[in-house]
Formats: sequence, structure tokens, C-alpha cells
Amino acid sequence: MYGIFSYDNDNPRVGFKYGDRILDLEKVRLSGYFDSIPIDEYVFLKPVLNDFIRLGQSIHRTIGQRINALLANDAVALADVQDQVFVPQSKARMHLPVSIGDYTDFYAGIHHAENVGRIFRPDGPPLPPNYKHMPVAYHGRASSIVVSGTPIRRPTGQFLAADGNVPVVGPSQTLDFELELGLIIGKQSAFGEAVPVEEAEDYIFGITLFNDWSARDIQRWEYQPLGPFLGKNFGSTLSAWVLPFYTLEPVRIAGPVQEPTPLPYLQIHKPGHFAIDLEVWLQPEGGEEVCICRTSAQHLYWNFAQMIAHHTIGGCNLNVGDVLATGTISGTLPNSCGSLLELTWNGERAIALNDTHRQTFLADGDTVTLRAFAQIDGNSLELGPATGVIYS
Amino acid sequence: MYGIFSYDNDNPRVGFKYGDRILDLEKVRLSGYFDSIPIDEYVFLKPVLNDFIRLGQSIHRTIGQRINALLANDAVALADVQDQVFVPQSKARMHLPVSIGDYTDFYAGIHHAENVGRIFRPDGPPLPPNYKHMPVAYHGRASSIVVSGTPIRRPTGQFLAADGNVPVVGPSQTLDFELELGLIIGKQSAFGEAVPVEEAEDYIFGITLFNDWSARDIQRWEYQPLGPFLGKNFGSTLSAWVLPFYTLEPVRIAGPVQEPTPLPYLQIHKPGHFAIDLEVWLQPEGGEEVCICRTSAQHLYWNFAQMIAHHTIGGCNLNVGDVLATGTISGTLPNSCGSLLELTWNGERAIALNDTHRQTFLADGDTVTLRAFAQIDGNSLELGPATGVIYS
Repeated sequence: MYGIFSYDNDNPRVGFKYGDRILDLEKVRLSGYFDSIPIDEYVFLKPVLNDFIRLGQSIHRTIGQRINALLANDAVALADVQDQVFVPQSKARMHLPVSIGDYTDFYAGIHHAENVGRIFRPDGPPLPPNYKHMPVAYHGRASSIVVSGTPIRRPTGQFLAADGNVPVVGPSQTLDFELELGLIIGKQSAFGEAVPVEEAEDYIFGITLFNDWSARDIQRWEYQPLGPFLGKNFGSTLSAWVLPFYTLEPVRIAGPVQEPTPLPYLQIHKPGHFAIDLEVWLQPEGGEEVCICRTSAQHLYWNFAQMIAHHTIGGCNLNVGDVLATGTISGTLPNSCGSLLELTWNGERAIALNDTHRQTFLADGDTVTLRAFAQIDGNSLELGPATGVIYS
Repeated sequence: MYGIFSYDNDNPRVGFKYGDRILDLEKVRLSGYFDSIPIDEYVFLKPVLNDFIRLGQSIHRTIGQRINALLANDAVALADVQDQVFVPQSKARMHLPVSIGDYTDFYAGIHHAENVGRIFRPDGPPLPPNYKHMPVAYHGRASSIVVSGTPIRRPTGQFLAADGNVPVVGPSQTLDFELELGLIIGKQSAFGEAVPVEEAEDYIFGITLFNDWSARDIQRWEYQPLGPFLGKNFGSTLSAWVLPFYTLEPVRIAGPVQEPTPLPYLQIHKPGHFAIDLEVWLQPEGGEEVCICRTSAQHLYWNFAQMIAHHTIGGCNLNVGDVLATGTISGTLPNSCGSLLELTWNGERAIALNDTHRQTFLADGDTVTLRAFAQIDGNSLELGPATGVIYS
């Protein structure tokens, strides 16, 4: 996984995560390990991954192979240089890995969408009528996406008072997380041109974990008729590490049967889902970290290729570094929901973290950490994490 | 007004609009007219205004004074250099004036909001319950904002077929414009910090015209529950010229009485509206241009300071170059509506452009031009324009 780190007083630069150490790719380059690969000599010294991403998947694969060879088979050579090329992750500071042009949030977790429908529209059908016809999405705020580890301030905003009639302004009383995967776009698409669904995955550089923190009270009062705004834009957490998308090939799986059959521009003839296990861990201030959700990316209704094909069908242009998040991923079991809204059924049922600590929405001092794992070549590859602590 | 132009084979650079000519500010600088102003020597050679904007309002005012003196009082000196410092606008190519981080679209035109409510929810109250409590807004797509003059491709997308039950995919049949003003943010606000309403105008660099092209059929099918997406993000048109906000001081006026009284964070104790006359002109392919809407910015319910205070109340950070658009501005008369949705009452009543040409939504080949005027010091100052032609 690639990310941007700084160490000592050096400028931020590109690193490769290797266990609890970071490989300084500029130093690897200076040691000659990337010789004959056509890369700009400053590409690893940039403060964001965007120029590295623009190198394209073919070069990413070559660089990945050289790194793997260095780490796995070239122990003698590595021993010579490892004091120079490795930085302990504990001593590094991580930065937002990409400069994000635009951020889009989908709603592709079908069980999440059904749960939200049941909670807020109990008398109607759980899914909106368009849900199985298109990957529903909205535009989010790019400026307030921060790197994993950045504290998140509880937002102040408007919401309806307890009597339900008069809006008041104050700190959100129902602060929540949302467990999502985030795609990082790797290739520009042209203004006015659609990306065909069969080519759509070529536009993905990598995958991250993404926490779309949500203030439910603010969101509920503001969102009609134009969608979420201040209920979401006070902060979103992106993992510091980005896994190249091609790495997931071994865990490619079929998604759910899509019935009704999608319109032609959304029909794709190969499996487009990925077996990624997802977890949410909650740690109250001074307490132990507890896993409160285990689920899987297989609960997405729409796959990544369909999201990109839909996003561009009208000609909207994608840029390198754009973030496309999946929306909250929830399973079908009570402890597989990717938000407290669902886990506590809108605060009606507190969840127990241990024998004494019960909780509905987030308290100040709570740390939420998203984790993800893919079983690749007999190893458990960990994505992310994406973590943040709430303060007021 | 400031913009980014190129001429001959020169790189894009900063220009100042003067009638039908453009003042090349780098050449003015080289002639010594900006001596003693503390500006970076490359600030006028940038391809976007962002670095110029960061100079701050005090320097913008000084530069503006020098330009005015040069143009008004220094005719002899100007004669010496004018072949060098002026470019005919007809020979220049205009570029998007700012690098836009995020774009937010408000819904602050109250008569537009009422009309939309009457058209789509005829049995309910025209305004949503939150409307008079907050400046409702949503996040838009920044990547597809293009400079005035860029052709706009009719978007393909999903919408309900005539029978109203089955979605189909095809070119939008109900393509529309939206008449809006766009603010360009001039100062960064901090992540996690609110901007007080009384200080909010300090965060505005300038004002533009903005056409939020809308595909009504796509928008209507997709927008529940998360708001507009593909119905809007296929293209938005920003004027090439940005008027510094302080220029509008002479036309500052009181806005509408706000009842109920807004919450304290939205209360501002000086007039926050501006007397700007607005027009929409429609020109069918091969036909004459006809004015189809005349209205005024006084029809905004919420003012600019309130929009910024609301946007940041939860800690969402603003960046230099962000665009905040007002939402469609409509008056109360039939010919003062800022969209064809309203002018034709959702296509029920065609409007007559001349004796023979009647029209509902936009046809291929139609050119839409937004114009705006402010009466300042006895002169009619023209903002914008923002123009675009539809093609398939």
C-alpha cells in the first residue's frame, strides 16, 4: 500500500507500507532498484500521490514487483540498505495521500439503505423506487476529508428540538460513523464523454477505507429536498494507505443477482465484487477497544465498475485523485451494521461494549477505527485503517 | 473585472476587462504601474486567479485604484503603452478563472423554491419546512464547471418513461438552465471552525454569473433520497470575468424581512443584499437572441454572509477558489423566472420567442446567455456574461 509520510524534518514523500515499517521509495530509487523504469526523478518526493498515480497501472505493477523482490528475495541486498530505506511507522507522520478534486458518496450498501428506510419511513417500502435501477449517489465535500488519525470536532448545527417543531442550534446529539470503502480514481475521463462499464475499472487506482462521519440530527432536518450537507461535511476520514486496485484480483467474486436487470450501460459481464472483510472498532476514552461490527464488501448491491459507468453516463468528468465512496456497508445480522444509526436502531437500543458500558451515538473521547482484510495468497492483507477521535 | 485570457501563443495570464479590450496586467506591471505594491513578480502569469486572490482585499483595492488611474486620468501615459498593454477581447481566448476546490449550490431564491414546490408538490405547502430557518444547500460537482463559451453536451441519463413506471436511458428531454450568481471564496477558513456571520463577507473575493444547467427528467428520477447528482453534474457555466466583491458596496441594499427571525448564528445587523439586475437571453440556432427573463438579486431570501456562516457552522472549511452559487433567482412575475421549468410551468406552457417560435425546454443549437448589471456611480456596470450552446 502506498501513502504519504514525513519523518524528522524531511518533506512529505511517497512510502510503501511493510508491516510496521515504511519503505522510503525515494531512497529505494536512489539505491538503483527502480533503474530502467521510466519515472520522473521527483515522483516520490511529491506531497501527494497524484503524480505517482498518473504513471499508470503498468508502471505501478512493475514498481510493485521490484518492491516485492526487494522485500522477499533480496535479503542480502536489503540488509545493506535497510537502515536507510526503512522508517518505523511509529516515528512517521502520515498525510492525506491524494489531492482530492471531487468526492462522491454512493449508497450502494443495500442492507444499509433498507435499514435507513425502515427507520425513517416505517410505513413505506424500505428502498426508494430508483434503488435497483441505478447506483444512487450524491456529491460530498472534498475540502474536509482528512487523513486517518485527525481528530474530528463534534459539529454544531441546526436540528429539531425534542418536541419536533422548533429548530435549535447546538452540538449534534446523534453523532455517528459510516463504514465505507473509498476508491481513488487513477485516470482522467473527458468532459462530455461516458466511460463504458466494461472499461470502468481501468479508471481506478486504488482502494481505501473511508469514514463518512454523520450528524444524524443535523442531516435529518436539512436533507429535504436537496440531500445531506452540514450533516456530513464537518469531516470525513480517509485511510493513510491506498491499496492498488489490481492487488484485489485474487479476491474478485460475483456480486448479488441484480433483479430487475440493469439498463444496458450498467450491465457488466464479469464478476465485479471483492471479498473484503470489514470491521468497526469503538474505544471509549480510557477504555478498551471493542469490535462492534463485522461485515463484508459483498453486501454492496452495485459494483465499482457500475458506479463509474453511472457517474459518467451524462458526461461528468473524473479526475485523478477523485474519491468515490461506496456508502455505508451493512450486512444482514444485528452486529454487521456499518453505522450506529442501524446498530442502535436510531438510538432506541443501546449496544453493550462490555459489562458496564452501554452506548447509543458517539460520545466525546470515542475513537472509531475502521479495519479491512483481504485473504490473498494465503495471507491476510490488511487495508486501512481509518481512525479518528471525537472532541468538542 | 478580472479573468484569465490567452492571446497568440502566450500562456494564459491575468487580465482586466475594459470594455471590449483586455488589459494585460503583467505588461502593466512591467511598465511600472504597480511599483511599490508588494506582489510576487509571477502573480499575473498564473493560469488561474487563485494566487492573485490570495493577495487579499487591501492589495486588490490598491491594484484597482492604479488601474482606474491608468485608465481614467493618465491618458497620455496610456497612449504610450496601449498597443502593448491591451488585447482586443475578440482575439483572446478566455479560460476558467479559478481552480475550484469545492462547489456548493444554495437554494436561496425564494420564489424559485416556491415555484418548484408548487410544480412538484401541488398538494403541499410550497416551501419545505426548513426553508426559512437555514440557507438550504447541497454540494455540487466542481470538475464539470466550465468557462463561459464552452459548449454543453445534452446529457444522456436515466429517467422515467412517459407512462411513469419504467426507467429508460437516453438523452434528456427536458434540459434547462438556471440563472444564478456565483461567489468566489477569497480566504481560507480553518477546518473545525465556524466563520461568524459578521465576518463572513471578508471571505468573498468576487462575484460571477453561474448557469447551473439542469436535466429535469434525470433529476426528478434520481434525487430521492440524496439530492441532485447526474441531473446537474454534466456541466455548469461560470462567467470568465470575476467582479471584486468590494465593487458592489454602492449597491448594497436591505434584503427581505426574515420571519421567523433566524437563529443567532444567522443574524446580521447590516444590509446584506445587492441591487443587481439579472437577465436571461435565449437564441435558437440561426435565430435572434431574445430576452426571456428579467429579475433581480433582491429576490434572494438569504444573503451571502448568511450562506457562508451556515456553510461553516459545523466546521466545514472553505478554500480560496471555492464557488458558492446562490441557486436559481426568480422574481414574482411570469417573465422574471430564472429557469424554463418555471417559465413554462414544467413544459405545460410554451413561451413565445417571436411570432413563430415557441419553446418549452432547450433544443440542440440553443444558446443561453446570462447577463447582469449594477448601477454604480451613474454607470451601468455589466457582470458576466455566462453563455453556452447546447449540442448532442
